[in-house]
Amino acid sequence: MASLLLTGIAELSTNDPARLEQGGVLGLVHDAAVVIEGHHVAWVGAAADAPAADAAVDLGGRAVLPGFVDSHSHLVFAGDRSAEFAARMAGESYSAGGIRTTVAATRAASDEQLLAHAAGLVAEMRRQGTTTVEIKSGYGLSVHDEARSLAVARRLTEETTFLGAHVVPPEHAGDPAAYVALVTGPMLEAAAPHARWIDAFCERGAFDADQARAVLEAGAAVGLRGRLHANQLGPGPGVQLACELGLVAVDHCTHLDAADVDALRDSGTIATLLPGVEFSTRQPYPDARALLDAGVQVALASDCNPGSCFTSSIPFCVALAVREMGMTPAEAVRAVTLGGARALAREDVGALVAGRRADLVVLDAPSHVHLAYRPGVPLVRDVYRAGVPQ
Amino acid sequence: MASLLLTGIAELSTNDPARLEQGGVLGLVHDAAVVIEGHHVAWVGAAADAPAADAAVDLGGRAVLPGFVDSHSHLVFAGDRSAEFAARMAGESYSAGGIRTTVAATRAASDEQLLAHAAGLVAEMRRQGTTTVEIKSGYGLSVHDEARSLAVARRLTEETTFLGAHVVPPEHAGDPAAYVALVTGPMLEAAAPHARWIDAFCERGAFDADQARAVLEAGAAVGLRGRLHANQLGPGPGVQLACELGLVAVDHCTHLDAADVDALRDSGTIATLLPGVEFSTRQPYPDARALLDAGVQVALASDCNPGSCFTSSIPFCVALAVREMGMTPAEAVRAVTLGGARALAREDVGALVAGRRADLVVLDAPSHVHLAYRPGVPLVRDVYRAGVPQ
Ligand SMILES: [Zn+2]
Ligand SMILES: [Zn+2]
Repeated sequence: MASLLLTGIAELSTNDPARLEQGGVLGLVHDAAVVIEGHHVAWVGAAADAPAADAAVDLGGRAVLPGFVDSHSHLVFAGDRSAEFAARMAGESYSAGGIRTTVAATRAASDEQLLAHAAGLVAEMRRQGTTTVEIKSGYGLSVHDEARSLAVARRLTEETTFLGAHVVPPEHAGDPAAYVALVTGPMLEAAAPHARWIDAFCERGAFDADQARAVLEAGAAVGLRGRLHANQLGPGPGVQLACELGLVAVDHCTHLDAADVDALRDSGTIATLLPGVEFSTRQPYPDARALLDAGVQVALASDCNPGSCFTSSIPFCVALAVREMGMTPAEAVRAVTLGGARALAREDVGALVAGRRADLVVLDAPSHVHLAYRPGVPLVRDVYRAGVPQ
Repeated sequence: MASLLLTGIAELSTNDPARLEQGGVLGLVHDAAVVIEGHHVAWVGAAADAPAADAAVDLGGRAVLPGFVDSHSHLVFAGDRSAEFAARMAGESYSAGGIRTTVAATRAASDEQLLAHAAGLVAEMRRQGTTTVEIKSGYGLSVHDEARSLAVARRLTEETTFLGAHVVPPEHAGDPAAYVALVTGPMLEAAAPHARWIDAFCERGAFDADQARAVLEAGAAVGLRGRLHANQLGPGPGVQLACELGLVAVDHCTHLDAADVDALRDSGTIATLLPGVEFSTRQPYPDARALLDAGVQVALASDCNPGSCFTSSIPFCVALAVREMGMTPAEAVRAVTLGGARALAREDVGALVAGRRADLVVLDAPSHVHLAYRPGVPLVRDVYRAGVPQ
């Protein structure tokens, strides 16, 4: 198996637990080198100690990070909602139907159209350093359209999530209970072969705690692991439900009380914060600092979707986390790498340690700090995924 | 002269006064085409009416904008201040000396090092759609170092600005009056051959109104047009001074009272807002909405510099202007194109109208709205400058 030595790394973020004491939150190594063999990391350490390899690349004093793990996105959709965004920013109400617009356009689109569009967004993410992405359904909302949305997502990632319980679609508006029965019955059956995860939007106006519990338990019964949208728009029971059920992650966590924070800390459920949503809806940001100080594990993700947040940029999320949520640049980078990996229960990505998949981001900058110090600048220079330059 | 027809333009932002009535703030044309002849725009209009040309490029339904005009940057410097940024974001005081660190590193750098570094930043800006950039001196602060900083800047742009009155350097700390005499005397003499503009930092802790006036008047006497940093950190006399002197532009304008706004409206001096600074220093943003509603002309620029704002991204400034300052996406795009051109007194850029320089940005998106709707995403696909693909 051919080996490749990467040298000239001014600063390497490893997320290696053995390096935390010396290297801080990111397990930094300065003047570092990495050896890739095939698809995996074979060696990590000080450049002076690097072993020989079949080939070498000098990165010229740049920073190297683990590939970003974006654990929350909604990429399978059709239609445009930029006018709705502009109206919201202008403080105008907009009656074009929000998410229902996307559902109608998604149902009307062919599988090929959905795949081409989602693949374009995955490629856009890849160029910005994302090497692992979770993709949800949730704009089909019929047995047929949820199943094919997930089949499209599965073409692009292993991390597919069935989100039939996104909102109640118009044709079931009068009978949400019947819709939950559909989601937990025939829709789940059609979706499950394409999904690893199941999710629900537990929020006033979407699904209550009993409905979300029913969805998550039905998913668990057919082998889908649970995750949850909760406490985005206001306080609610979602975070506590997620912790009670021992979910891997609960996402948004914008409106939390002390009991929610305690539950997160005690359960180990990861709080995935999505600050692009607050940016794009002009809402107050979640208090990441309080969560970290309480000992809660935090991930950051994009929530890339056409309605509430159409960024695909993990570097932008890092910059927001530092500006708006009191995270240090190191904490934010950890949250988009190891944090994302943990939120997807992945042991093979999120860190640069021998044996992990060789997913690396090379920045056009000497330090991870520049992701926050240079907001909006496309600093991702090279991306390796499974050892392959992208 | 060879002509090139650009078709497949879903939305063209022209900034053509003749198109404002139908096309709104940006003079939009949908399903548009542009003909470039040599370095200039030869024709703009509906694709159906386009004349023949020697060659054609189909842009596939994308949006086209005038190249961005960034009227405020500080690109000639050396040294790294990322640790200072991280400390500021963590709420820690940081004693490493701020701007003086940059002055020391800049003085120690060779002309070749300064040029290579600044050229890298200009190239980074170009990839993000900036086709005209103003560059200030202000990290030399000696006769020799200001003159060579401007000589470096002049290699990269026509829009060079002498900012000897940035701060009082350490060796003159005890006698600011002597430093102003140096700036208005030998330093100006050495700088003037390389500069088009003169600028001063009129702020508590930097230069007061009398000092700023002396600097601007000395510059005017040798043919340099004035611009001013004012009202960034608190209320002050700078904006009114700029208006009284009839300067083209006054920059920052974060802390204004009603009299300042009236003076801006009445003088026609352009208020250049720099929201990346407020992002990167966690300060409140200027009230662009109030300025626009009062009839003040507004530009947006990056202020790219190593201390208070190290973004080079005009798209990021557009997104901030919409999220944080109440501008519509159209107003923000106008402010980074025509607004920037006016802030530099340039008639040849900032609009896509026959006769102007053919500076164009092609977005990987169907509308200018996406610059705000998709924050952080590198949406600039192609850049033409003076008719030449970059
Ligand atoms: Zn979501
Ligand atoms: Zn400035």
